[in-house]
Amino acid sequence: MRRYKCIISYDGTQFSGYQVQPNKRTVQSDLEHALQNMHKGEHIKIVASGRTDATVHALGQVVHFDSPLSIPVEGWKKALNSLLPDDIRVRSVEIVDPEFHARFDVKAKEYRYRLWMSEEPCVFKRQYTHHYPYPLNLNAMKEAAALLVGTHDFTSFCASKTEVQDKVRTIYLIKMEKQDNELILSFIGNGFLYNMVRIIVGTLLEVGSGQKEAKMMTSILAGKDRSLAGKTAPGHGLYLYQVYYEGWQE
Amino acid sequence: MRRYKCIISYDGTQFSGYQVQPNKRTVQSDLEHALQNMHKGEHIKIVASGRTDATVHALGQVVHFDSPLSIPVEGWKKALNSLLPDDIRVRSVEIVDPEFHARFDVKAKEYRYRLWMSEEPCVFKRQYTHHYPYPLNLNAMKEAAALLVGTHDFTSFCASKTEVQDKVRTIYLIKMEKQDNELILSFIGNGFLYNMVRIIVGTLLEVGSGQKEAKMMTSILAGKDRSLAGKTAPGHGLYLYQVYYEGWQE
Repeated sequence: MRRYKCIISYDGTQFSGYQVQPNKRTVQSDLEHALQNMHKGEHIKIVASGRTDATVHALGQVVHFDSPLSIPVEGWKKALNSLLPDDIRVRSVEIVDPEFHARFDVKAKEYRYRLWMSEEPCVFKRQYTHHYPYPLNLNAMKEAAALLVGTHDFTSFCASKTEVQDKVRTIYLIKMEKQDNELILSFIGNGFLYNMVRIIVGTLLEVGSGQKEAKMMTSILAGKDRSLAGKTAPGHGLYLYQVYYEGWQE
Repeated sequence: MRRYKCIISYDGTQFSGYQVQPNKRTVQSDLEHALQNMHKGEHIKIVASGRTDATVHALGQVVHFDSPLSIPVEGWKKALNSLLPDDIRVRSVEIVDPEFHARFDVKAKEYRYRLWMSEEPCVFKRQYTHHYPYPLNLNAMKEAAALLVGTHDFTSFCASKTEVQDKVRTIYLIKMEKQDNELILSFIGNGFLYNMVRIIVGTLLEVGSGQKEAKMMTSILAGKDRSLAGKTAPGHGLYLYQVYYEGWQE
């Protein structure tokens, strides 16, 4: 029995999220289906670094699984990609220590959120960016973002239907970069609560558009109340960009 | 009655091409359906600059139609976009001379073809580029392309199932540009035969990969035989980029 770690990417458009759900197409079920094919029908359980929601994309999701098959890693990659639909790709496969755990061993995660800033919508971007055609005060957004960096109780930035008790997380970095008509926000932290990145983006948009003041971030954090923060930005602008197992250093 | 000219873009992925076909989703039928909605169920015929095939995209397709409704052009754009699915967008609407004809008045057209050159496929590019993960000799491709520029009988680069008799066309320009992992080929000409751009791309790829010599373009043209040229490159890498009604000047 060997433990394998895979880095996978997926276009979230056609998935009801990562996690298995009855009668829905999910990333996990497609992956487990491909593995089942390779193991003569035996179910092989996959563990991911975390879930992603419907329409959310991934460039660097990480999963692990155990298998008795002795196939070289390049063979695993080829075999899995030949069995997977073309909106999921295995980018790499490596043999890891049997103690490695794709979820418990995560040291940091990087998410990106892409905003399409042009006044005109773009048919080619509609599933891959959130169209936000209004002017934004980037300086105010950066000021607000700086107040979120660090270790805080992010209750106000967490969907209320979560089961997690401890809502203290550390954000190491929030970066904003304009590329042509896109504004790309990067978030690196030791962990993110349910919908946390999307709620932060929604709140930063309210700051950028003047509906909220940047300095309000402090009182929103302190209030520990979801209703104080902004709307949850749509899933299709969000990318699980990278998962770090060795910690994150700027 | 007024004649309107619209520039439209569409993501070809979910369409069985531009032209109406029974029981298939096409760009024309979606556009005519939206217009019918605005005209109390009356059918409004749309004329395009030309057809595009299944999975082929458009950034600057041009159509015209006649309507008795007196709506300002911005109102037309808004109304049509609110009635259209989000993979078709009306980019602009203008009132034109009643003699304007979206097809007969075309002076030149520009197509682009996008190749994804990375060894690894990309889930986000799979519907928008043709994945070609092999090394290409760009100089040989440029040499071959130069032999196609000018006025020629393009019978060898035309799908055999066409009904067009006169296969003489003028290509003004073929350009190749490397952008990160993409190679983008641009084609401007006074008109293109059925599948002509895709067959030229397929043939240029055979030159770039060493299967054909660049100088063979001359004999392929002279042979007037489809079987002499290369394979038809897939539709999903192709974009109708712009339609010129005033002629084209470099």
